[in-house]
Amino acid sequence: MTLLSSCYLFKGLSDSQLLRLSEIAKEIQIKKDQFFMKEGGQAEELFVLKEGALELLTKVEDGFELPIAIFRNPGDCTGTSSLVEPYIYSLNSRCVEDSKMLIINKAALNKLMQEDHNLGCIIMKNLAQQLLNRLKETRQELKVHFKTIFKSTQL
Amino acid sequence: MTLLSSCYLFKGLSDSQLLRLSEIAKEIQIKKDQFFMKEGGQAEELFVLKEGALELLTKVEDGFELPIAIFRNPGDCTGTSSLVEPYIYSLNSRCVEDSKMLIINKAALNKLMQEDHNLGCIIMKNLAQQLLNRLKETRQELKVHFKTIFKSTQL
Repeated sequence: MTLLSSCYLFKGLSDSQLLRLSEIAKEIQIKKDQFFMKEGGQAEELFVLKEGALELLTKVEDGFELPIAIFRNPGDCTGTSSLVEPYIYSLNSRCVEDSKMLIINKAALNKLMQEDHNLGCIIMKNLAQQLLNRLKETRQELKVHFKTIFKSTQL
Repeated sequence: MTLLSSCYLFKGLSDSQLLRLSEIAKEIQIKKDQFFMKEGGQAEELFVLKEGALELLTKVEDGFELPIAIFRNPGDCTGTSSLVEPYIYSLNSRCVEDSKMLIINKAALNKLMQEDHNLGCIIMKNLAQQLLNRLKETRQELKVHFKTIFKSTQL
C-alpha cells in the first residue's frame, strides 16, 4: 500500500482507496534483460516497480532502439496505455536488473474506477498531468532539432 | 450544447452533464491574427472553437515559431493546460480568421468536476487519451530525426 501511494498515478487517493487498489495488485518477479511490455501489443497490465530497474525503449529501425527512460525508484510505473483506449503499449520495456513489480490488471482497475468515480477522476487527472509533462519534454527535444536546422539555414 | 458534445473532451457525457457544462461556457469573438493563449502564461480558460480557425505555435527562437497545428472544425479545443497542474499554457495560439469561441473558466469547470466525479472522470480520461495520442505523434516525429541521424552514421 505504501508502494502504491508513492506512484504518481495514485497521489491523492485515500487510505481506503489505496487498500482497495492493493487488493487487485499482484507481485511478480522479472529477470534481468527480460522484456515485459511490447510496443504495439495489447496493454492489459499496469506495472509499478518495487525493486530493481527497468528501461523504456522505442524501436526506430530493425536492430536500433531509442532509449526513452530508465526507472529505478520504487513506485515508478509504466504501462499506462492500459488505462486509455485503444489500450496499446506505445513502448518496449525490459528489466535491466532482476526486479520485483506490482501488476494491476486493466479490467480490475476499470471496475474499481467505475465503482468509485472519485478514485477514477484522481487517477485520470494524475495521468493527464504526467502525459502533459512528457509531451512538453518531447516537444522540447524536437525544438532542439529544429533550432539546429534553423541555425544552419542562418549561416 | 451540440457544439460541446462534438469536443473530444466531452464525449460520453450525458445530456444533463452537457447542459451544466453549457451553463458555465461563455461565447467570445476573436479577431484574425489576435493571440489569445501565451506559452508559459497562466492557464485560466479552455477554448472550444465555434466558427473560424486557430493556429497553435511554439517559440523556438526569437522571431521563429514552430507551427504545431491548425484547428478549423467546430468543437476543436485548446487550452487543456487549464485542466491540469501547474496550469501553465504550453503553446501560443492565435486566430487565423475572425473566430467565435466558447470559453470555459478553469475554476468553474473544477467546481463542476468536484460536484460530479463521474463527469470529472470522463473528461480526464478523454484528456489523457488525447495527450497520449499527441505524445505518440511527437515521439514519431523525433524518430524521423533519429532515423536520419542513424542512416547518416551508416553511410
